[in-house]
Amino acid sequence: MQAQAKICQTVPYLGVGNMLRLLAHQGLEPTIRGMAAYIEEDFRRWPLFDKCPRVASHSAEGVIELMPTSDGTLYGFKYVNGHPKNTHDGLQTVTAFGLLSDVATGYPRFLSEMTITTAIRTAATSALAAKYLARPDAQVMAMIGLGAQSEFQALAFRALCGIDRLRVHDIAPAATAKFIANMADQGLTITACASAAEAVLGADIITTVTADKLNATVLNDNMVGAGVHINAVGGDCPGKTELQADILHRAAVFVEFPEQTRIEGEIQQMAPDFPVTELWRVIAGELPGRTSRDQITLFDSVGFATEDLSALRYLRDVVQGTPFVEDIDLVAAPTDPRNLYGLIRAAAPAPLMETL
Amino acid sequence: MQAQAKICQTVPYLGVGNMLRLLAHQGLEPTIRGMAAYIEEDFRRWPLFDKCPRVASHSAEGVIELMPTSDGTLYGFKYVNGHPKNTHDGLQTVTAFGLLSDVATGYPRFLSEMTITTAIRTAATSALAAKYLARPDAQVMAMIGLGAQSEFQALAFRALCGIDRLRVHDIAPAATAKFIANMADQGLTITACASAAEAVLGADIITTVTADKLNATVLNDNMVGAGVHINAVGGDCPGKTELQADILHRAAVFVEFPEQTRIEGEIQQMAPDFPVTELWRVIAGELPGRTSRDQITLFDSVGFATEDLSALRYLRDVVQGTPFVEDIDLVAAPTDPRNLYGLIRAAAPAPLMETL
Repeated sequence: MQAQAKICQTVPYLGVGNMLRLLAHQGLEPTIRGMAAYIEEDFRRWPLFDKCPRVASHSAEGVIELMPTSDGTLYGFKYVNGHPKNTHDGLQTVTAFGLLSDVATGYPRFLSEMTITTAIRTAATSALAAKYLARPDAQVMAMIGLGAQSEFQALAFRALCGIDRLRVHDIAPAATAKFIANMADQGLTITACASAAEAVLGADIITTVTADKLNATVLNDNMVGAGVHINAVGGDCPGKTELQADILHRAAVFVEFPEQTRIEGEIQQMAPDFPVTELWRVIAGELPGRTSRDQITLFDSVGFATEDLSALRYLRDVVQGTPFVEDIDLVAAPTDPRNLYGLIRAAAPAPLMETL
Repeated sequence: MQAQAKICQTVPYLGVGNMLRLLAHQGLEPTIRGMAAYIEEDFRRWPLFDKCPRVASHSAEGVIELMPTSDGTLYGFKYVNGHPKNTHDGLQTVTAFGLLSDVATGYPRFLSEMTITTAIRTAATSALAAKYLARPDAQVMAMIGLGAQSEFQALAFRALCGIDRLRVHDIAPAATAKFIANMADQGLTITACASAAEAVLGADIITTVTADKLNATVLNDNMVGAGVHINAVGGDCPGKTELQADILHRAAVFVEFPEQTRIEGEIQQMAPDFPVTELWRVIAGELPGRTSRDQITLFDSVGFATEDLSALRYLRDVVQGTPFVEDIDLVAAPTDPRNLYGLIRAAAPAPLMETL
């Protein structure tokens, strides 16, 4: 980059290359644990946040969303898309990036890739919720759907909940093969199952994380036994659900931000007054999580802006002062703020001009 | 940058340094004209755009806003802050950056600084409106307020309307001195005036572009004669206006997006049904602009998301294939989109690792 100290305020930038270097350096599971700690901290101070449902621009092919929030000191937002058909063209369903800025000045302070980060923060949030909601002696997790999110979910549940036995299923054998190959050196005991019904047998936790955008029934009511914790990740936008509604009636349902989850989550199937508990109240100790061994608990996860701000805070802090961050010249900074034109009037920065 | 072809989709990035190089290379006025042509084109196809008021996060110190829009093919948004007290700390009131992405895939396609760009697009929009609304024989412009936007306004009115005589006033003599110094080599005839009342004498166009956030009266009704076009730029957020309401009653008022202007513009002083004309309808030929020589026309400018998308489109097209753009590794792109984890599992990109 050709950032010029006199003309701009540089912004620390964590790109994809450096994100991968950071993960190679410190490991994915420690990263998940570190990010989960920031997410947990921010759930505890939930009332501080300026919260609104995401700002969505829908098209026939998908959705592009902006997810802003602020804790009064830091402002953050994420740009994220959701285009289910992208995979047919070799593209990802979800890409994302995000920014932190100072509320007091409005100046950008950190820009980061968030495609990889979103997968990590989603898995970290799932496992964090399970830490509060699943039975403490849970050992076996069933996972239905082995797409782009699945490995992150598996490693997050080991990192935060100690789950090391997995029963997995995907309708696509290639997805199962990919998951098993990716997890081969992780020391997990993985059982590939021919059906979702087989996968959930004996599972203490059931994670549903399928990708198709439709009202599917990945999990039937008769597949869910007493005492299970359900981590419902894939039902996350209007018209996309994974669970039979009967399960929701039997379960204690926990959500991030009810106003958003009623639009996007599994509970879009339910009446507007369907009772839910805000996860932050459990984490903050205001309300109980699981109240008995036999209770069915359900985290209806859709992903909320505060989790992205937590993830950005974590990454900003972790990369500060390391070689894993670059400076980019995103913000013009004239010596006299009233003289923006002075930047243009001054001699143009030297590099590059010679090449023209 | 250490962008890796195999792991990411690079995004063209126009930083502050390259923006200044581009302006030094092609000149500010040609840039204003080029950007105005894109803005004009997008006003003509206004009904295509997905429009909403900006998404604002207010604090005691200022506001941080996201301004998204889409024409069905391209999605764009701008991040912009407004912190009037920033200048006391040597910081700018407004900083901004923006992004274009493909509606069809959601993938980011262009990232740009927009602090300088916002000043250019605001001035280009002002002059474009005047081209349709001011008397064709207008020769003299009064400008009240000589802050960061003033030079851009002056040059835009010359570039688009041929205005080369300016009568200027600012309550701060230093601002006037700065403006005159910046414009010294531009061939404009500039008269510094001791008051706003003096500045408007004989002016065909009056531009108000003051910075303080309050309901001020920069322009009194008795200062505005028949046939004048008023370019009201500074009244652009709730609680910030510049014109005495009586002027609005006498004038034909033109706005960008009424839903937003009624909140932010001069017409925040008026009843919710105060009659206004959408500027795009004049540009598209649906409605007349000025209907007589004696009419007072008023462009109540607040800045709208479509203008930022136009500006980003222009910059993307202009820098493509030039040395004025860099690639940054903003978007992770695994070979198999279902195997995001594969990026992490693969050997980390080589650069930097040796330095740890």
